[in-house]
Amino acid sequence: MRGLTFHGNGDVRVEEVPDASIEQPTDAVVRVTMAAICGSDLHVLQSGEAFGFAPGARLGHEFIGVVEEVGSDVHTVSPGDRVAVAAGVSCGDCVYCQEGKRYACTRMSMFGWAPRLWRHGGDVQGGQSQFARVPLADSTLFRVPDEIASPERQATLLPLVDVMSTGWHGLISGGAGPGCDVAVIGDGAVGLSAVHCARAIGARSIICMGHHDDRLTLALRLGATHTVTTRNPDEIRELVREATDGHGAHVVVDTISSEASMQGAHAAVRAGGSIACLGMDHFKGQVPAINWYDQFVRNITVTGGLIPMGHYIPALMGLAARGEVDPAPMLTTRLGLDDAPEGYRMMAGRAPGVLKVALEFG
Amino acid sequence: MRGLTFHGNGDVRVEEVPDASIEQPTDAVVRVTMAAICGSDLHVLQSGEAFGFAPGARLGHEFIGVVEEVGSDVHTVSPGDRVAVAAGVSCGDCVYCQEGKRYACTRMSMFGWAPRLWRHGGDVQGGQSQFARVPLADSTLFRVPDEIASPERQATLLPLVDVMSTGWHGLISGGAGPGCDVAVIGDGAVGLSAVHCARAIGARSIICMGHHDDRLTLALRLGATHTVTTRNPDEIRELVREATDGHGAHVVVDTISSEASMQGAHAAVRAGGSIACLGMDHFKGQVPAINWYDQFVRNITVTGGLIPMGHYIPALMGLAARGEVDPAPMLTTRLGLDDAPEGYRMMAGRAPGVLKVALEFG
Repeated sequence: MRGLTFHGNGDVRVEEVPDASIEQPTDAVVRVTMAAICGSDLHVLQSGEAFGFAPGARLGHEFIGVVEEVGSDVHTVSPGDRVAVAAGVSCGDCVYCQEGKRYACTRMSMFGWAPRLWRHGGDVQGGQSQFARVPLADSTLFRVPDEIASPERQATLLPLVDVMSTGWHGLISGGAGPGCDVAVIGDGAVGLSAVHCARAIGARSIICMGHHDDRLTLALRLGATHTVTTRNPDEIRELVREATDGHGAHVVVDTISSEASMQGAHAAVRAGGSIACLGMDHFKGQVPAINWYDQFVRNITVTGGLIPMGHYIPALMGLAARGEVDPAPMLTTRLGLDDAPEGYRMMAGRAPGVLKVALEFG
Repeated sequence: MRGLTFHGNGDVRVEEVPDASIEQPTDAVVRVTMAAICGSDLHVLQSGEAFGFAPGARLGHEFIGVVEEVGSDVHTVSPGDRVAVAAGVSCGDCVYCQEGKRYACTRMSMFGWAPRLWRHGGDVQGGQSQFARVPLADSTLFRVPDEIASPERQATLLPLVDVMSTGWHGLISGGAGPGCDVAVIGDGAVGLSAVHCARAIGARSIICMGHHDDRLTLALRLGATHTVTTRNPDEIRELVREATDGHGAHVVVDTISSEASMQGAHAAVRAGGSIACLGMDHFKGQVPAINWYDQFVRNITVTGGLIPMGHYIPALMGLAARGEVDPAPMLTTRLGLDDAPEGYRMMAGRAPGVLKVALEFG
């Protein structure tokens, strides 16, 4: 079969790879029908060697498809089922999964990630391939509701498995609910997902902060009520207050999570509000110079972190089945599997109009 | 009347002060029957000038008493009622009060605090005095349930108005619930309050970390299941895991909130858990060198902050009325009002056996 592989920083290729096969009774093999390129895949493209990616490692954790084969101990899906694949493998049984905290599952793995990161579940190859082995299939695969279980609806379904789960996580971990005011920092796919989910949750003001006209236009289409383009915290404070009866946002979803974005988040959040950090800039090991005095006396909660995708996917599929969310417009670009390296380059180069690349296989 | 006043760093006195009187129709005057000295009063004793305390300012925000007189627009209490006085004045009507976030009340004031801090509600004198003017009495005063509305039960009631509300806030903001594991950093009155409240909430393991044998002994009496005396984060991690089936605490209540205590809190908390910061060390303006990578990939929520006392007092009085909490043992020392300066010195000097000083007036 063919799959996208890593061969050193800046070098990904589509080539013949070993067939996916059942290795454990709890495995399934999924025929991948559509996969997406994630912002975090670009981190791998650029710095995969430092993360421990070996030559030949297969990438990709955002994919959906049809069950091809199941192991003897798989009970919730059958061959032929159209499925969403949680970007993270989780067991569903451990103390963390039982608490809804699948990111900390004792057997957690991310598809297509380096063995020394998120490796509890052992080696799990990526899904930007014709087929993928899915461990712990009963808790990692989700049968797609009939309303969206067709090839035509794949662009609605695919974002749910990671990027929409991530936006949703920002809102849920931050305590968003109907009538609250939400500010989203970042106009990438995660930011637009948070905007779109905020509308589904029933937020009142939904403020999207970014620096790309095309993406902010899409944000307005997906649910944003206001857009903000400044990076100046004082201006952010002022503009967000104008949009929120003078108070600031109940929940700020910070999809960047750099020192600068955190300072903007502090400016945007109201007293008693939450900042949900979803970005990977924390990984750089810095200690952001945020104002702890302000954080304390304004009762700002800082939350977010890794995403329990499997915990959210059923709810998100329900919203999609009922037409309350449709993230399809975020997949701005469709390519075939063999063109995946070009897709990586387009996203890494922030090609105009390219928010997110989908790879269509079948 | 007599009241405790500030006269410069290190100098508090009991002297004749102007009588408390009704100034607004929403005011009440309370005859104070018992007041306590708070750890934050010691900050005032030591550094009040820097906070903006003027000579003659009356101190104290932990007090209870009997309603002496009410303004024409006070409806929920009457003269003769025994009342708990929330340490913070709040209106009960603004958007923040309506959300349970009284710390951000647009008319919030703290009794006995400097005008330039927490001043929205205007000048409010302290309650370590024979009488106190209570603004916004309908939402700042709480009638005491019959079961604990007697002079003999004052030591059970008094801690609820601030120190127990603070411990409770740590648990509630951190999401504590029945069966969860709680670690408390600090064996002062707030720490022991958090321990005691954790037992009332139905926590499983309750680990109290401190460095005073007498206080840790009291912690065990109030509900702690384990005590930890090391300051070394690696040892904290190990000991807390031993007490929590290998996972760490769901909620860490950090009553110190210094860089060192935050590092201990990170060591104690489990993936997906919360750290509630309750201490005032944030006020020093430092940026604690905590591990943001760890915070992100282990989904640690940082919360806490100022306390919405009035939001918690009815629940805490209910617990006390039903005998589910009784914080009276925390009031280790009883003095008269005229001995208050000596009480400040005893607490500031960490006199052996002195956890918290209560001033009895009547």
